Amino acid sequence: MGEFELIRRYFLPVAEQRGHPDLLLALGDDCAIQRVPADQDLVFSVDTQVEGRHFPQHYRSEFTAWRALASAASDLAAMGATPVCFTLALTLPEADESWLEGFGRGLAQAASRFGLALAGGDTTRGPLTISIQVHGTVPRGQGLMRSGAKANDLVAVSGTLGDAGAALDFLDVQEPDDDERALLERYHHPLPRLELGQALRGFASACIDISDGLIADLGHILERSGVGAILNPELLPLSTPLHRCAGERAPRLALSSGDDYELCVTISEKHWGALPEGVKNQLTVVGRIDRGQGVRFEGGALADSGVRGFDHFGSIS
Amino acid sequence: MGEFELIRRYFLPVAEQRGHPDLLLALGDDCAIQRVPADQDLVFSVDTQVEGRHFPQHYRSEFTAWRALASAASDLAAMGATPVCFTLALTLPEADESWLEGFGRGLAQAASRFGLALAGGDTTRGPLTISIQVHGTVPRGQGLMRSGAKANDLVAVSGTLGDAGAALDFLDVQEPDDDERALLERYHHPLPRLELGQALRGFASACIDISDGLIADLGHILERSGVGAILNPELLPLSTPLHRCAGERAPRLALSSGDDYELCVTISEKHWGALPEGVKNQLTVVGRIDRGQGVRFEGGALADSGVRGFDHFGSIS
Repeated sequence: MGEFELIRRYFLPVAEQRGHPDLLLALGDDCAIQRVPADQDLVFSVDTQVEGRHFPQHYRSEFTAWRALASAASDLAAMGATPVCFTLALTLPEADESWLEGFGRGLAQAASRFGLALAGGDTTRGPLTISIQVHGTVPRGQGLMRSGAKANDLVAVSGTLGDAGAALDFLDVQEPDDDERALLERYHHPLPRLELGQALRGFASACIDISDGLIADLGHILERSGVGAILNPELLPLSTPLHRCAGERAPRLALSSGDDYELCVTISEKHWGALPEGVKNQLTVVGRIDRGQGVRFEGGALADSGVRGFDHFGSIS
Repeated sequence: MGEFELIRRYFLPVAEQRGHPDLLLALGDDCAIQRVPADQDLVFSVDTQVEGRHFPQHYRSEFTAWRALASAASDLAAMGATPVCFTLALTLPEADESWLEGFGRGLAQAASRFGLALAGGDTTRGPLTISIQVHGTVPRGQGLMRSGAKANDLVAVSGTLGDAGAALDFLDVQEPDDDERALLERYHHPLPRLELGQALRGFASACIDISDGLIADLGHILERSGVGAILNPELLPLSTPLHRCAGERAPRLALSSGDDYELCVTISEKHWGALPEGVKNQLTVVGRIDRGQGVRFEGGALADSGVRGFDHFGSIS
């Protein structure tokens, strides 16, 4: 199968299932063309997933595609952006039809769910690597950044944390029980908080998605904003399945495992009070920004525990 | 070295050496932000290079970076777009400082030469793979596409063809002579025809960059436009070094080797006559569009020769 046949068979259907009115030209030319409305800014991010590092070897290709697009789309959520389209740079060792069929299906499902049209891409032969770049828009000047956190802002997170990290223990379980299944679903089909991110525009002072663990990702907000934070581990939102499956490890998973793709936001008390109830309900306050440095914990119980986030290059000396 | 230190040391300087007024936010946040002027369209393309497939193993990292950015930027040239910025998704097996230092230097040189600001990226650990997405702009509705070629249009190409393909024979020569050096330079430092592409807006009926060989790439124009072409191989622009080094193989290299990153355009006689001399001088007419199918040759000498372009997935069954 040649490159063009491969694209025609597995990716053209993804492009055809949904377009976007701003996407004027997709697939089949030297470039794609997007029209950005005059009152909007373009917001974009690229995210790479490597087999054996970001997902297990022999992982189902349907899940691989979903997770790759979700991981990229989560960066749009963190900016408060409305999704528009994406490109796919896919390097794969061989044109395995059943793998490609599953990958195309997972990509189509995720693209439809997240509201992203396939704009273009490149397929090459080599070790399995997936780079996805997502494009979204925000009203001019209203993108949520990491740099706006201020002392006394509340620190809040969406959903529950640690579930996807706990699922790593069950990836090979043949007949998972209900709790394990719930955690696995969070690993296989993460749901970037796109609507929530958009709803936080004009309220949050800073925002980031939690892909490497709360401590690591909140750390990026602190560094860019020149502030510190104190967290209360007892306030961490933990799911019942996580409690039941991970027991005492639950708080640590919530603090330092990635892959949940929830949002971490900072927000002034005043803006917190002004948040619509339906938005506030999706968030849990877990701490507060201060003039210190780095992430610290109330009571100091975890202060010296060495809990860390995940650095994709951490193991390179 | 962690991911963030790696970015700080080798890629932040590339971002800092030149920005772009449309690039409002680069590196260090969840997304980059680009403002597209209200009278412009965004034009973008992603291009992947894999070690051992698109460039040789142990190839100099400085050249690797230049070629990767040139290859992507060439797609902007083919659309007639003005370069703005790019993202880099770099997967590499280890943080080899001398490799990274050369890669950063080559990237900075190419970015400066092509007028592209580094907007963001992702670095991950794995087999060496480089995906670059370039962003440019065109006045609304004026992007050059593959689909506009019409019967009786002239087929023209820029520069000389086959040089980079011929250079493959000399990549390991320790002391190349002047001719070999000239061909090698075209392989190591391709120059996408960005200004020429922009100058062809409003004149060319279709345009593509020649990355896989003239026959293959002109073939894409023909397919998208629903037309055929007759080429006269005697008109192919061949450089003196190519003549001297490749001899009788020269026309075939010009027809079917890629990596030159010249442009192939179709243009009506009327528009050809209206082209400014400075633009026309950069082009050579090599044939004509007709109502047939595919690429054919005057005289039929090459008709049955099996000369083909390069399909990056050609060897996958």
